[in-house]
Amino acid sequence: MNKAVIAPDSFKGTMSSMEVCEIMGGAFSKIMPETETVKIPAADGGEGTAEAFLYAVGGKKVCAKTKNPLFEDIQAYYAILRDKKTAVIETAAASGLTLIETKKSPLEASTYGTGLLIKDALDKGCDKIILGLGGSATNDGGAGIITALGAKLADENGSETAPSNRGLGQLRHIDGSELDKRLKNCGFVVACDVENVLCGPFGAARVFGPQKGADEKTVEVLDANLSKYADALHKQTGRDIKNIPGTGAAGGILASLLCFPEFFKCEIRSGIDIILDAAGFDEAIKDADIVFSGEGRFDSQSLYGKAVSGIAKRAKKQNKPVIVIAGSAGKYGDEIYDLGISAVFTACSGLYSDFDELKGMCREDLYKTAENVLRALTCRTRFFRC
Amino acid sequence: MNKAVIAPDSFKGTMSSMEVCEIMGGAFSKIMPETETVKIPAADGGEGTAEAFLYAVGGKKVCAKTKNPLFEDIQAYYAILRDKKTAVIETAAASGLTLIETKKSPLEASTYGTGLLIKDALDKGCDKIILGLGGSATNDGGAGIITALGAKLADENGSETAPSNRGLGQLRHIDGSELDKRLKNCGFVVACDVENVLCGPFGAARVFGPQKGADEKTVEVLDANLSKYADALHKQTGRDIKNIPGTGAAGGILASLLCFPEFFKCEIRSGIDIILDAAGFDEAIKDADIVFSGEGRFDSQSLYGKAVSGIAKRAKKQNKPVIVIAGSAGKYGDEIYDLGISAVFTACSGLYSDFDELKGMCREDLYKTAENVLRALTCRTRFFRC
Repeated sequence: MNKAVIAPDSFKGTMSSMEVCEIMGGAFSKIMPETETVKIPAADGGEGTAEAFLYAVGGKKVCAKTKNPLFEDIQAYYAILRDKKTAVIETAAASGLTLIETKKSPLEASTYGTGLLIKDALDKGCDKIILGLGGSATNDGGAGIITALGAKLADENGSETAPSNRGLGQLRHIDGSELDKRLKNCGFVVACDVENVLCGPFGAARVFGPQKGADEKTVEVLDANLSKYADALHKQTGRDIKNIPGTGAAGGILASLLCFPEFFKCEIRSGIDIILDAAGFDEAIKDADIVFSGEGRFDSQSLYGKAVSGIAKRAKKQNKPVIVIAGSAGKYGDEIYDLGISAVFTACSGLYSDFDELKGMCREDLYKTAENVLRALTCRTRFFRC
Repeated sequence: MNKAVIAPDSFKGTMSSMEVCEIMGGAFSKIMPETETVKIPAADGGEGTAEAFLYAVGGKKVCAKTKNPLFEDIQAYYAILRDKKTAVIETAAASGLTLIETKKSPLEASTYGTGLLIKDALDKGCDKIILGLGGSATNDGGAGIITALGAKLADENGSETAPSNRGLGQLRHIDGSELDKRLKNCGFVVACDVENVLCGPFGAARVFGPQKGADEKTVEVLDANLSKYADALHKQTGRDIKNIPGTGAAGGILASLLCFPEFFKCEIRSGIDIILDAAGFDEAIKDADIVFSGEGRFDSQSLYGKAVSGIAKRAKKQNKPVIVIAGSAGKYGDEIYDLGISAVFTACSGLYSDFDELKGMCREDLYKTAENVLRALTCRTRFFRC
């Protein structure tokens, strides 16, 4: 029996990676119904990551009481995977920007709710937490997470400070000794697809602050407070995390986690690598005949740290062909083939007057393209045999 | 050695069928340089037909003195193929609309110049004439052609009438007895891709008159004169050609030719079939591994009498796979695969703001698509083997 692994990224603005899996899978069902398909949607740590893991690995959705970025009570979801030991928690679930879209408050927003979800996962017996960064509303340097898990933050008078960016400005003392002991037996895999550092021109506030509602002046305050927090952490824990790539993600969450390594044993990886590993991609392609991937727009940027390149690199190691179907394509050179991509097709079937028209056609276009690729690959010819 | 036959239609508005041959051939040269490619561009009898035959079959371009549709002296080109016996003459060459674009005169325009080119081909020893209809400026029912070759047209007083649509109105007598005797030993293959009849709502004047410069009133005059001509021909030759499909093409040329069958032994065929036969398509694909075709826009219309369907039908008879690359695609159903098309790809690589932008990218888009199709077909997989 033939076997295909379908591992696409989302088509940004039109289809989730899971939808793309379903559509490509549909084309296989039609053209070669006897083919076994393994579907692994890409996830980048942002919204949809937990769902993608459940789709690829299996497990169940868990609902927990927690707090939104402004400390209001909410219910949020995360995933516990099939092994019942691994939780997939999106920062966006409790601390996401979409939760407070109409009242963005970069100075006040906290990751406290994400800490509560981690606690909930520990309560449920998990000892591995896949934490997706991305989509957060916060700039609290991860202070909310560690506070929810038992750390104490205080100002120069010893009064408790809020685990928000504003609170970081007053902070003098950080006590991690009362962090949840169960964390010591728990491993964290942090899905992080950006290399930004905590502070400065490429830092959390400067780069991501504006989309979280910060004007120019607020960006400066956010940046200064994160810098003070880094100094305080340095002083208290002896660890200088200011220039570690990734500490700029999700408002600086890794700053807190990396300073308490006995509690947060963090492995920082790209989202695509985490899900490919969790779903057993390398194992799945061993006896597969072909890999299908895809993304919304393919161009030379696709080679740098994105899902398609991660998939192509792994497939290349096992000499498996990779067919990429993209919504559209920009400029790219022959280096994409060296990377492990066998061929790239665009799904766009014609001249669309605008993105909305394209959007309306994208599912049919993708299906037809996948179908025709399969038809071409199976056409009866003695041509092109290896 | 592998062999591919490349037989595309033109991409209307962007690339000639020859250009498409070259671009697809370029992709073969890059990806599988050892493959033999046979290139047969489609031709429909309109402008570019002679050139397409020269490209596919070989031969030489011939320049001859003749008359444009308004009887002005011009030089026009036609082709004499490699066998030195077959001429390919486009009606558009001497009687084309583009020759009198600024002074369209549907009532006065004549195919006389096309008759002179036929005479020139006879003078040069040709005994087979491929006559491409399409692109004409005329509505003379072919009166110009037969007049140039010796027929006499006269009004009720016996005075010579002009071989134009206006002249047909006065016509009473048609004498074909002095037609060039050499025509008796000459065969005509008429490239005609429309099924319109001579007169009436689907006739030459009504359907094609407006693009030749006729307003509503003129269309009526043109139609009435063609009808009178048909009646006169019927009376003189005993042949009623009014309802024969194809007599509405090129201003009614076939009306004249079909009424003098001893001089014009006409085989009426679609342009694609004529060029495929002349270039030996059926023979060429016998030992070929694959056929590449294409057209500007692919949709369910592509199945009716157009180049791609003609090619697919022939390839199917020999069980050869056909890959179609289209500029864009509309709706089509699975019947295209039954017809002999293995797979269809669109070259359009993305969201273009208008046709001009698409035009600027179309060559690169086509090349990349052809390249990626070949890369997919040659990718190393044990998958999909027949």
